Amino acid sequence: MSEKLILITNDDSVNAKGIRSLIQTAKQFGRVVVVAPDKAQSGMGHAITINHPLRLNRVDLFDGVESYACSGTPVDCVKLAIYEVLKCKPDLLLSGINHGENTSTNVLYSGTMSAAIEGAMEGIHSIGFSLADYASDADFSACQPFIEKMIIKTLDSGLASNTCLNVNFPNLSIDKIKGIRICSQAHAFWADRFDKRLDQFGNPYFWLTGEFAEVNPKENTDLEALKNGYVSIVPTHFDLTNYQAIQTLQDWVI
Amino acid sequence: MSEKLILITNDDSVNAKGIRSLIQTAKQFGRVVVVAPDKAQSGMGHAITINHPLRLNRVDLFDGVESYACSGTPVDCVKLAIYEVLKCKPDLLLSGINHGENTSTNVLYSGTMSAAIEGAMEGIHSIGFSLADYASDADFSACQPFIEKMIIKTLDSGLASNTCLNVNFPNLSIDKIKGIRICSQAHAFWADRFDKRLDQFGNPYFWLTGEFAEVNPKENTDLEALKNGYVSIVPTHFDLTNYQAIQTLQDWVI
Repeated sequence: MSEKLILITNDDSVNAKGIRSLIQTAKQFGRVVVVAPDKAQSGMGHAITINHPLRLNRVDLFDGVESYACSGTPVDCVKLAIYEVLKCKPDLLLSGINHGENTSTNVLYSGTMSAAIEGAMEGIHSIGFSLADYASDADFSACQPFIEKMIIKTLDSGLASNTCLNVNFPNLSIDKIKGIRICSQAHAFWADRFDKRLDQFGNPYFWLTGEFAEVNPKENTDLEALKNGYVSIVPTHFDLTNYQAIQTLQDWVI
Repeated sequence: MSEKLILITNDDSVNAKGIRSLIQTAKQFGRVVVVAPDKAQSGMGHAITINHPLRLNRVDLFDGVESYACSGTPVDCVKLAIYEVLKCKPDLLLSGINHGENTSTNVLYSGTMSAAIEGAMEGIHSIGFSLADYASDADFSACQPFIEKMIIKTLDSGLASNTCLNVNFPNLSIDKIKGIRICSQAHAFWADRFDKRLDQFGNPYFWLTGEFAEVNPKENTDLEALKNGYVSIVPTHFDLTNYQAIQTLQDWVI
């Protein structure tokens, strides 16, 4: 069996502790290449950079692992990795480990998950990992045995077509984690608030803040699994069509 | 019946011709408030601004229509509009008219559509409009009667819950447009290429470019409808779960 090629990216930047942990786990399974943002790109969603050019610089951060810091978004990193660095599609794309959870509708805001979705759009088996701890020195050690298992499963059997995985880890030690749950995306959203301040000239500016609120809690969601101490896995695709709504719109045609 | 409140945004900026056309059409149906980016934000997807503060400035561009230019992304505009400008949810959110089509997986990259999706997440009836012409002086006149009809239908009957509409217009005169098609999102993607150049110091930089390629063309997609001269409408939701894949992943649990 030829050596597997594993592309790793994230949205917290090439300097984050989470990506270092993921590289450490992944490199026992093949040749790892890293292309990750040169600065934090949290909340960048599926943004791409089209109005200014991108920079890509070789960095030596991970003990001999071929690595690049990119000036763009996580999705830019995936595109540059495939079309300029690797010039081929890797066997596996891993994104993360994100500092902070990406359950529910956060999948849309998340650079980490958007990179995995971009991988799926390119036909690459892709997984995004997130830990429910925003701290820069978060402890990722409990994630490791789960990630190993998921890499082996994916390299062995692949994933459903056009589908990546959104994996969230509870912030618990390994002995407290109850297991894995295959879930649907919860319907929750940010009840946003803005912190309005005045600058030195008396002009207002706004910081986005808010609280995460669940709407109509339902069974077997990622949010519920995480809250109950499970690792959540949501099979995530990029077809946003609400097929059930197609029929009810037919009278718009006439 | 009380006057309807209509929020308008886009991703081409408050100065684009497309938003001016949309305001003109919408203002006959109620009170219009505009909160749109102060500069082009194409390709920003569902990005939000969390690492620096946002500015919001009143502008007088649209003949007495209350309007604001925002320093952030289209999704930031929606959030600021609801929580700081209106301090309530509007009856309708309209985004566009985008200069350029947003069919297929472009819905994920599109700031125009991400604003509409954000509206749906907030429980607001939301529609994103795009014209298949990237020119800054594109002719939006053929869109107008269709948009009028869609505004009336939506204010009368609402939309499916958690679902916005992705509307694309072919670049044709009104007499050439064959009608409306209710569609699913096509499975196409950008076969990306990068234009690699050297700066004055001999260091490389990259411009994202590429061609849009359809994968496994299927019946009744937005891409096909547009190509055949129809206005496409895709009911678009924000649950990315691939429910069919949940069962096949169950052996990961054991």
